[in-house]
Amino acid sequence: MDFISHYECTLCGRKLAADLTSLTCPDCGLTGILDVKYDYEAMKKTVTRDYFRSNTDASMWRYAPLMSLKTTDFSRALRVGNTPHYRSHTLEKTLGSGPLYFKDEGANPTGSLKDRASAVGVFKAIEAEKKTIACASTGNAASSLAGNAARMGLDSVIFVPKRAPKGKLAQLQAYGAHLVRIEGDYKATFEMSRKAIESFGWYDRNAAINPHLVEGKKTVAYEIAEQMDFDVPEWVCVSVGDGCTIAGLYKGFLDFFSIGLTRKIPKLLGVQSEGCAPFHRAWKNKTALIETQENTIADSIAVGLPRNPVKGMEAVRKSGGAFITVSDQAILDSALLLGSKEGLFGEPAAAASLAGLVEAYRQNIITADARVTVIITGNGLKDPDSIRDKIPEPVGTYEESDVLRQYLRNHKEEKS
Amino acid sequence: MDFISHYECTLCGRKLAADLTSLTCPDCGLTGILDVKYDYEAMKKTVTRDYFRSNTDASMWRYAPLMSLKTTDFSRALRVGNTPHYRSHTLEKTLGSGPLYFKDEGANPTGSLKDRASAVGVFKAIEAEKKTIACASTGNAASSLAGNAARMGLDSVIFVPKRAPKGKLAQLQAYGAHLVRIEGDYKATFEMSRKAIESFGWYDRNAAINPHLVEGKKTVAYEIAEQMDFDVPEWVCVSVGDGCTIAGLYKGFLDFFSIGLTRKIPKLLGVQSEGCAPFHRAWKNKTALIETQENTIADSIAVGLPRNPVKGMEAVRKSGGAFITVSDQAILDSALLLGSKEGLFGEPAAAASLAGLVEAYRQNIITADARVTVIITGNGLKDPDSIRDKIPEPVGTYEESDVLRQYLRNHKEEKS
Repeated sequence: MDFISHYECTLCGRKLAADLTSLTCPDCGLTGILDVKYDYEAMKKTVTRDYFRSNTDASMWRYAPLMSLKTTDFSRALRVGNTPHYRSHTLEKTLGSGPLYFKDEGANPTGSLKDRASAVGVFKAIEAEKKTIACASTGNAASSLAGNAARMGLDSVIFVPKRAPKGKLAQLQAYGAHLVRIEGDYKATFEMSRKAIESFGWYDRNAAINPHLVEGKKTVAYEIAEQMDFDVPEWVCVSVGDGCTIAGLYKGFLDFFSIGLTRKIPKLLGVQSEGCAPFHRAWKNKTALIETQENTIADSIAVGLPRNPVKGMEAVRKSGGAFITVSDQAILDSALLLGSKEGLFGEPAAAASLAGLVEAYRQNIITADARVTVIITGNGLKDPDSIRDKIPEPVGTYEESDVLRQYLRNHKEEKS
Repeated sequence: MDFISHYECTLCGRKLAADLTSLTCPDCGLTGILDVKYDYEAMKKTVTRDYFRSNTDASMWRYAPLMSLKTTDFSRALRVGNTPHYRSHTLEKTLGSGPLYFKDEGANPTGSLKDRASAVGVFKAIEAEKKTIACASTGNAASSLAGNAARMGLDSVIFVPKRAPKGKLAQLQAYGAHLVRIEGDYKATFEMSRKAIESFGWYDRNAAINPHLVEGKKTVAYEIAEQMDFDVPEWVCVSVGDGCTIAGLYKGFLDFFSIGLTRKIPKLLGVQSEGCAPFHRAWKNKTALIETQENTIADSIAVGLPRNPVKGMEAVRKSGGAFITVSDQAILDSALLLGSKEGLFGEPAAAASLAGLVEAYRQNIITADARVTVIITGNGLKDPDSIRDKIPEPVGTYEESDVLRQYLRNHKEEKS
């Protein structure tokens, strides 16, 4: 099945043929990010609710016919997708909110939503007969690329900014990636990767360049829709860095709506950190997107110069959603709430989605009765250092049970 | 469905009624670990291959009728189990081995196989109307307990030895566990937990005390059998600490064999670290199990005084398997092989299983043509510090592309 009708430049609007091999618009260059357009009328005839009911593939590849892939055999791939969509137990009551759900993307093979994009990237690289695939990343795009590439026998070259958490670098090393640490921020890292990719002829997995990666990311929206029996929530909250994830989310909901599987597109809440909020600022001030500093503990969304401004902005605007900012403290508080009240451990950028929801309630952007899904974009084990606060001092041996008794009494009081 | 026939003491053999509430043998005390015995004749009539084919629950709870649980509603639980069983891509060829598979238990909600036991523990605690559940653990039992308890609204109290990796402690904190760090080794930690559990009347999740936890762990064997269409492998390799995981593995294969779902029980390879190998020593020297030091990087199996010696030893003996030891260096090498050749990131104790397989080939314990499953017991993100070796120095900005070019040339040469 191939439902691609054409590619369209998000900058100049030029339509390009479906058999295009270039990753960006020939007229606009690197900023001319392409969007894959589908023939929804044709898709509609095949891709029905029954189509999914009879589909036994419990991974993102159940959606392969809705993506821009030629590959049809995914038996050798990591099992990406089909992550849990949990109903809230406690926070729904605590917050007095409507039905609240958590999409736990940390359950993906390398621990983040980015697996959905990297898995597609690796298969596109194989289709293009490349042996090496490369990207610049603050962490999760990198580790997901390294893991998915290793699984499929490709070499990966990863460009990381100097500040990337060491836990994430260890994961890259375990996957055997060629690691290039850049003396500089994400912007410098991205530019370095572009230069090298061009010079060495590698396949480019940078999400802002490569139009196919959004097609992988959009499967998270498909899953939410299926997991809610096609009755999608009113709002979906997700943290925003480069803008590619929220763009994928919108695309997925748009696809399902366009082929008549769902009756609406959820409003998207794009959550940014106060210390790095270029999307929020541009959205609020109705200006172009201006580069900002990258000052936040939420490493995965610390992107001062987002590379996918058009798609990211459109996702929020077209869905009728909003951007919002949260403080680092609110992010940490949310991570602890998620863990202790729901049993879900998210990295800071993941917990930011929940912090954004709380702030959106406060600002009356989201009403108390709305059905909401919060996306936990990455596993807390990715960056435990940022969560850890006070690890208690060791207490004595078991003979000294008074010490223990006192310890527990104090601890109980602290908690209540 | 309730197929329990009785409980049996693994020490004195005494049979105890199926409605027993005590966790250990009333005659033998704490060392009188009980085994849950089932009426296989009754089970056989209901639990057939067709029973599983029509079972739509894609989690360990699809096996609930084969466990010692009264609970039937698991809709609020974390989604434990149904982890991938990957065919090897590269190592099978590199090692010249028969069909080789990896069971990726790091894909569980808190990142390890222990989720299977903790999930059962939490439901048993709820059945016993307890509000608090506690255990001593080197890490994974603890984090799985904390996560599963938080999910179901229970308090957890976790006793950890001082040396537990800090990444694991951060996870406990995120789940809101009451953390008690013990100045001492695992033995001291275990004894302290016992004292406190008794004194405070909490539910005991110590795997060596509580007979129900093995019933959760055994589901990993059920899954392997189902994922291989009931044609189980000749060998299954797993690292061994307390002995509870390998005991669960044996129990699961025994159950399926006893009710006629499979035609054999795989031989079990119990892998220990050279620096902490009490099972291996006792097995090799045909002596009782003697306490040893705990000197290994594989934190999750650093148990000098295993608390489940009888069940652990019987699993290997009755299956016709073997114990084997591996060095810390072999464990690290295996972790890098797993990651770079298969795209699977395991913590050191997980990679030890693969190291054990390689050693078993060398010693001709496992023949080259055997079908083998290697269990990856925990996610590499649990303990990345132990994997990380040399993180490269940062290279300059993109203007200095010669630096990069040289860097990549060196790196390529290193790799080849």
